[in-house]
Amino acid sequence: MLDRDQTHYLANVMRARTGDEVALFNGRDGEWAARIDTLGKRAAELSVVRALRPQLAEPDLWLAFAPIKRGRIDWIAAKATELGVARLLPVITGRTQMSRVNVGRLAANAVEAAEQCERMSVPPVDEPVSFAELIDAWPRHRILYVGDETGRGTPLAEALGANATLESAADTPRGVLIGPEGGFAADELDALDVLPFVRKISLGPRVMRADTAAIAALAVIQALVGDWRTARGG
Amino acid sequence: MLDRDQTHYLANVMRARTGDEVALFNGRDGEWAARIDTLGKRAAELSVVRALRPQLAEPDLWLAFAPIKRGRIDWIAAKATELGVARLLPVITGRTQMSRVNVGRLAANAVEAAEQCERMSVPPVDEPVSFAELIDAWPRHRILYVGDETGRGTPLAEALGANATLESAADTPRGVLIGPEGGFAADELDALDVLPFVRKISLGPRVMRADTAAIAALAVIQALVGDWRTARGG
Repeated sequence: MLDRDQTHYLANVMRARTGDEVALFNGRDGEWAARIDTLGKRAAELSVVRALRPQLAEPDLWLAFAPIKRGRIDWIAAKATELGVARLLPVITGRTQMSRVNVGRLAANAVEAAEQCERMSVPPVDEPVSFAELIDAWPRHRILYVGDETGRGTPLAEALGANATLESAADTPRGVLIGPEGGFAADELDALDVLPFVRKISLGPRVMRADTAAIAALAVIQALVGDWRTARGG
Repeated sequence: MLDRDQTHYLANVMRARTGDEVALFNGRDGEWAARIDTLGKRAAELSVVRALRPQLAEPDLWLAFAPIKRGRIDWIAAKATELGVARLLPVITGRTQMSRVNVGRLAANAVEAAEQCERMSVPPVDEPVSFAELIDAWPRHRILYVGDETGRGTPLAEALGANATLESAADTPRGVLIGPEGGFAADELDALDVLPFVRKISLGPRVMRADTAAIAALAVIQALVGDWRTARGG
């Protein structure tokens, strides 16, 4: 049984009709074909017909990012989803310009992007936290890559492949932290300097916009140690 | 002497004033500091004061892409520029939805992105060509990475690092071809299959949007064999 929003999406966005088959997933049980038995204005009923794809493990990769303007932050949510991110964590830093985050809208962007790119899970979008809260709550075993604004960070490819250590293993939990366009405040940089799970990285000689940096970093991680080496299923 | 558009940008976007110094570049001679001597409504005069940065060689990386909707194609031009692309080549393929390309607007996007990310060159934007024209004119020594829609392509990181061959050298000329959302037509795929400079690559298990795929591929190339290993100049 689908709720009103899901029904609307099915009927008006996907233009599905009674008798059509659609692919369903819930992030746990893989992907299944389901036939639409009834399709009304507010509710729909589907019957599961057969299994399509087993649930594949996805890389354990988080993206923490300072909120930016509406159009751009929506793009981060959608494109990070296309790149397989497992969790989206908005963080309000000292120099963050946007103090409010529409988590519901970002979550809707993530849902739509997940459906379009055929991934079998949707990354949750957290309520925003402060920089201090993010750092305090950060799991100590999870590596956090942070762009080094001084340009002295380790090139990302090097940080990912360093000596075939544990840090380059595919299932290592990781995260990327992207600051606001104005960069991190001095006290935030000081805090990052002394945290053992932080890796200061370089994303090249050009000063990328925050949304570009987020997507670029995620792509490189997925390509080198993530699931870009997994061929798409049939 | 600046023209009217450059003067407008200087006065109204950058909010510069007489006596201010700005950084100038022309893609050939490096970056120089120049002082604004006069700043009118339609013209400005500047005097070069001193050298700032020498011209750095930039990776020889092209992006050929089927045009997509207005906001998204502007985004490709800007973000590809932030990622250091050397040339932008719009290509009209069989299934391309947008048959017209506003080259001037894309070029303006590239200029603005180059200025914001502090690169010392602006990638030119070609007039659009057909798929056949692109392939016929493609320099035979330039590797062309194309996303394999069947999912059987070589993972991009592997294609870039294969056996430390000539193809993984930093100064190898390269290009990326991103097709339209509907994919390449059968005859285009047949043509790509037999071209010796084409490398069919996989960008992971998710079906990315064309603009996401373009930026993701460029980021991975720059990180592995491009200039992401260059620290930013002081």
